[in-house]
Amino acid sequence: MNVEKNRVIGIDIGGTGTKIGVVDARGKILARDESIVTNAYSTFEEFINAMCGVIERLIKITDSKEKVRGIGVGAPDSNFYTGNIEHAFNLPWKDVLPLARMLSERTGIPVRVTNDANAAAIGEMTYGTAKGMKNFIVITLGTGVGSGIVINGELVYGCDGFAGELGHVTMVRGEDGRLCGCGRKGCLEAYCSATGVARTAKEFLAKTNTPSLLRDLETITSRDVYDAALKGDKIALEVFEFTGRILGEAIADFIAISSPEAIILFGGLSRAGNLLLDPLQRSLDKNVLHTFKGKTKIILSQLPDSDAAILGASALAWE
Amino acid sequence: MNVEKNRVIGIDIGGTGTKIGVVDARGKILARDESIVTNAYSTFEEFINAMCGVIERLIKITDSKEKVRGIGVGAPDSNFYTGNIEHAFNLPWKDVLPLARMLSERTGIPVRVTNDANAAAIGEMTYGTAKGMKNFIVITLGTGVGSGIVINGELVYGCDGFAGELGHVTMVRGEDGRLCGCGRKGCLEAYCSATGVARTAKEFLAKTNTPSLLRDLETITSRDVYDAALKGDKIALEVFEFTGRILGEAIADFIAISSPEAIILFGGLSRAGNLLLDPLQRSLDKNVLHTFKGKTKIILSQLPDSDAAILGASALAWE
Repeated sequence: MNVEKNRVIGIDIGGTGTKIGVVDARGKILARDESIVTNAYSTFEEFINAMCGVIERLIKITDSKEKVRGIGVGAPDSNFYTGNIEHAFNLPWKDVLPLARMLSERTGIPVRVTNDANAAAIGEMTYGTAKGMKNFIVITLGTGVGSGIVINGELVYGCDGFAGELGHVTMVRGEDGRLCGCGRKGCLEAYCSATGVARTAKEFLAKTNTPSLLRDLETITSRDVYDAALKGDKIALEVFEFTGRILGEAIADFIAISSPEAIILFGGLSRAGNLLLDPLQRSLDKNVLHTFKGKTKIILSQLPDSDAAILGASALAWE
Repeated sequence: MNVEKNRVIGIDIGGTGTKIGVVDARGKILARDESIVTNAYSTFEEFINAMCGVIERLIKITDSKEKVRGIGVGAPDSNFYTGNIEHAFNLPWKDVLPLARMLSERTGIPVRVTNDANAAAIGEMTYGTAKGMKNFIVITLGTGVGSGIVINGELVYGCDGFAGELGHVTMVRGEDGRLCGCGRKGCLEAYCSATGVARTAKEFLAKTNTPSLLRDLETITSRDVYDAALKGDKIALEVFEFTGRILGEAIADFIAISSPEAIILFGGLSRAGNLLLDPLQRSLDKNVLHTFKGKTKIILSQLPDSDAAILGASALAWE
């Protein structure tokens, strides 16, 4: 008798923790585990063993293995085509790690792998606000800036599996551009990530004597800037104005290229809501090519924070 | 008896002339006509009549109508989804022109319409240097800068049919940016079109006293700059260096977004060959994100100049 394969497993591998969940076709997480500390394993093989243990346990809790259609994994610097993690900065194991092959050999379940921003885009398309959309971009605003681009209903992987590095288009050219983690200057990520927001705050504080709640802090995070802005702090509000302006300029360029139906903002910084959206929309309206004016919606992701990473990864396994 | 439909018709509607050709499956033009002067017709209907007359004649010369699979048209400001030309700047008739509908009603042959840059991309994929490629971008360097983007083997039209405006990404932000024909400032097109090259030459001449062959000319075209550069003219060589640098910076961003296998340069300015390619490649190598270094080939279109527009348009009709 054929059992209907109506479950998928989503795994989100992060630099600190790894989350695993069993998900049904409507995006309900039936069982989850967040106990794996990624950097506690000295070899990749031990890490795979730990994941397999958790997967086995979650499958037992929820039902039989026969119902599981596949495993989707979101992992940094991972390649959809090869299923490998390649030279990841934020993981304890270097070189090329054959994630998909090892995991599918051990579990007997098909495995698909992509980076977290692409997983977020597939998650939005499968369970989220992009259901039914054929052309949209998810921009993840976290420690870095990533993106998952969907065109004609398909994710854009490019010729090598690494397309979608919107965080590394150049926004400020020449020597004035901020040094980015990638070694180049002026990247979008250096301005519009959570880290970029904190940097902008420090720059603005250094440039003026304007009183600010942020002056009392020893270290400044984007969360501090957000809290201060909510209290009407002038510098903090200027930081969001600046961040929104640059993101709006970048999005105007992305729209000229792929004319998406929507841009979906995802990740930590997107929780700033209108503090970011208002200046972003003003900047976009000012900078977008006339042909595209008013055509692309800017939307905040509606996937619940705690579930988004597992859901996004799991959505890969339906494909 | 079923006749094999192994012919297509390609039509290139330009601001001055309109070219029509019957093309076989290998990209051979079996018959062609370039007699239609686009702006000689006061109404769009008269223009359609003229095209239908030519089409009928070309079909008679080459064979029977039953063998014609479809008509593909490349036209400015045209929309693949609707088949309309919408508010074209360079055509004598304004408003929305239902090109595909009128032409297919009159000829009884299916008609597909797109802009010339998209037609060029489909042409390269069908008969040209992009045969077998799934991810590439054609950049047309003519009076303006246009592009046809192919991702996962399909042309990118976006949500409204107008995607691919690479000529209008912003390369120089703020007030220093050159005014572009679109009304915005700093667009790629304002620097890397044939017109942009002539503008750069005038700027460079005004800024210095360096002797130059270009100083003797009353008006300067990109062709003049090319001729002078071939003779070793310092200013002219600097103009190509500058143009290549900006185009390389832009292409570095496009690669970060879609990681294409190749960028194919097409149109008037691409005939400058290594004068443009050398500084472009240097700039690209300097600016591209490390992940993508050396992965994307920069290629000059190999389609013969005189045939490219008809071939590109005709390729639409195979789809």
